[in-house]
Amino acid sequence: MTAAPMIELWRGGMLESEHHGHAVIYGPGGVEMAWGDPNAVIFPRSSVKMIQALPLIESGASEAAGLTERQLALACASHSGEARHREAVADWLAMLGLSDDDLRCGAHMPRDPAEKKRLICSDSTPCQMHNNCSGKHAGFLTLNRHLGGGSEYVDVMHPVQKAVKSAFEEVTGETSPGFGIDGCSAPNFATSVTGLARAMQFFAAAKPGGGLRENAAARLAQAMGRYPEMVAGDGRACTDLMRAMGGRVAVKTGAEAVFVAILPEQQRGIALKIVDGATRASEAAITALLLRLGALEHSHPVVERLLTGSQRNWRGLITGELRLAPGFG
Amino acid sequence: MTAAPMIELWRGGMLESEHHGHAVIYGPGGVEMAWGDPNAVIFPRSSVKMIQALPLIESGASEAAGLTERQLALACASHSGEARHREAVADWLAMLGLSDDDLRCGAHMPRDPAEKKRLICSDSTPCQMHNNCSGKHAGFLTLNRHLGGGSEYVDVMHPVQKAVKSAFEEVTGETSPGFGIDGCSAPNFATSVTGLARAMQFFAAAKPGGGLRENAAARLAQAMGRYPEMVAGDGRACTDLMRAMGGRVAVKTGAEAVFVAILPEQQRGIALKIVDGATRASEAAITALLLRLGALEHSHPVVERLLTGSQRNWRGLITGELRLAPGFG
Repeated sequence: MTAAPMIELWRGGMLESEHHGHAVIYGPGGVEMAWGDPNAVIFPRSSVKMIQALPLIESGASEAAGLTERQLALACASHSGEARHREAVADWLAMLGLSDDDLRCGAHMPRDPAEKKRLICSDSTPCQMHNNCSGKHAGFLTLNRHLGGGSEYVDVMHPVQKAVKSAFEEVTGETSPGFGIDGCSAPNFATSVTGLARAMQFFAAAKPGGGLRENAAARLAQAMGRYPEMVAGDGRACTDLMRAMGGRVAVKTGAEAVFVAILPEQQRGIALKIVDGATRASEAAITALLLRLGALEHSHPVVERLLTGSQRNWRGLITGELRLAPGFG
Repeated sequence: MTAAPMIELWRGGMLESEHHGHAVIYGPGGVEMAWGDPNAVIFPRSSVKMIQALPLIESGASEAAGLTERQLALACASHSGEARHREAVADWLAMLGLSDDDLRCGAHMPRDPAEKKRLICSDSTPCQMHNNCSGKHAGFLTLNRHLGGGSEYVDVMHPVQKAVKSAFEEVTGETSPGFGIDGCSAPNFATSVTGLARAMQFFAAAKPGGGLRENAAARLAQAMGRYPEMVAGDGRACTDLMRAMGGRVAVKTGAEAVFVAILPEQQRGIALKIVDGATRASEAAITALLLRLGALEHSHPVVERLLTGSQRNWRGLITGELRLAPGFG
C-alpha cells in the first residue's frame, strides 16, 4: 500500500509541496487508526532511543551506576549539544572513569547556537560529547561496563547491541528484517510502522511495579516527560511538545522524518514516518495526531509554530501555510 | 497524473526514504521526455531568475547602467553571501546611487561559512546584501531606475514586476494561473513544468544576434556559464555543475526542490520539481538528467558528490547511498 498524503505546503493560494507518509495509532486492543501502509518497513532511527535504553535498566547497570532520572532522559535524547548536555555527558563519562575518546558516536557541530558560536569563534572543533546521540552512547558505555564487553560497543555482534536487538524485537513484536548503520555508528534495526507503534503502546501501558521490562519502560517514559530539556533542547519540537503536554506524554523524533509518541493516560502509542524524510512534515504530522487524541491543546503556541501558523519570509511577510492533507489528522 | 519516483535513499540494503517529482526535457520540437505530470503547476521560485532578468536587458536599462557580464550573472544568482557577492552588490548599488536600505529582499545570515563566522563572531547582523537574492534585486533596482517606478518594486502591480510577468508568460508560453510571495518578497509566478522547460529551451536556442529577447536570453545564459561562482558559490551544486560542464550549460536551483538547465549546444531545456521540496533530491535528479543527455561526465567528482557517492556518517562510515528510482534518469 502506498503512503498517504499528510502535510501540504501552500503558497499564494496554491499547493507548492506535499509530504506523504505512514502512521499508526496503537491502543490496548491493537491498531486503532492507520494512514498509508501500516506494514511499511522503516528505520526508526533516533525515535527508538528509549527502546535502546531498556537493557541499561533491565540489566541492573543503571542502578549499579546510580544513574539519575535526568541521566535516563539524556540516554533517550537527540540533544542540541547545549552546554548543559555536554556537561552532563562529561560528568557521566567521568563517573564511569571514561572519556570522550571512549565514545563511538563521532563528532559534529552542535545545533545549539550558543555552543556553536563558542566553538566557531574560538576556532575549536566539536567533540563526540557534542554529538546529539552522546547521551545514548553514555548509556551504552554504562551497560557495557556492566556486561564486561569490549570497547567497540557499536558492533552489531557486541553484547550491548545484541541486548538492544533482543529488547527491540520483543517490544515491537516483530523479527527485524535487518539493520542499517545510523549517523552515530550504532546499528539501527528496521521494523514496520505498526511494530514501532506497538512498542510505543507497550511503553504507554507499562507500570512502574509491573515486572523488569515494564518497570524499565515506565521509568524511561517518565524520565523523558520530566526532563524534556534533556531529550532535545530549547526550541526543539520534542522538548516543546512534551512541555506543552505537561510531561504527561513522551515524544521522540528520528532522522528521516520519523516521530513517535507514548501516551500513558490513554495507553496509546503513535508511530509515523514521512517517506521523503522531511522533518517539517513529521513535526507537523505528530502535532496533528496529538491534537486528534486530545493530548495537546489547539491553543498552545507550539501548535501554531509546528502546524497552524503562517509561513513568513525574511521581511516577516506571510508567504503561505502548512495544511493537513484531506483525510489526515 | 501523479509524481513519478525519482530519487531513493538506501540504508543497510533497504529503502529508507524516497522522493517523487515531475520533470520535462524540452527540445526544438517540443517535449522529448517527461516523468510524472508535465502539466503539474509549480512555483519555479529562484530557478527563473534568468527570466526575471530579461526586462533588465530588453529595456535597455542594463546597457544604460553599463552592467558587466559578471553583474548579469549575479542578477540570476541565489548566492551564498560570500564577501565577493556582498561586495559586488554593494558596488552595484553605489553605482546606482542607492544603498542597502533600497533593497526589499530582507536580510538573512549568509550560507558562506567564512562570512557567517565574521558576522557571528563580531556580533553583527546580516544586511540585505547578504540575502541570496540581492543580485536579482540589484537588477530590479537598475530596471526601476530606467522605468522611473516607485520604491516598492516588489509590488506585483509595480512596473518592474509587470515587465517580469509579461516576459515570464511569453517565454513559458502560458498564462500564469497566479503568483505567490517568494522568500525575497518578490512575486513568483506559477507555471507548469512543461512551461518552465519550454522557457529554458527558449534560452538554449536563443542567438546573440537574434532579436531583442533572444539576444537578452543568450547573454544571460552565457553570463551564468562564464561566472558560475557568481550564480551560487563555492561548493554549491549550481556552481559546481556549471564548472563541471565547462560553462557550456547553465543550471539554476529554486527553493522547494526546483531545478532547471539550459543546454545551448543541444537546444534543449530541462525543468524538474521534487514534490516534497527536498534539495538533495532535486540536485541528484538534475545530475541524472544531465548525465542522460551526455552534458555531464560520469567521472566528474560532482556526480559522485550529488548522486553516485556513498552516504557517510560522522565517523566516515558508509551508511548507504542515493539511487535512481526504476524508470527515472
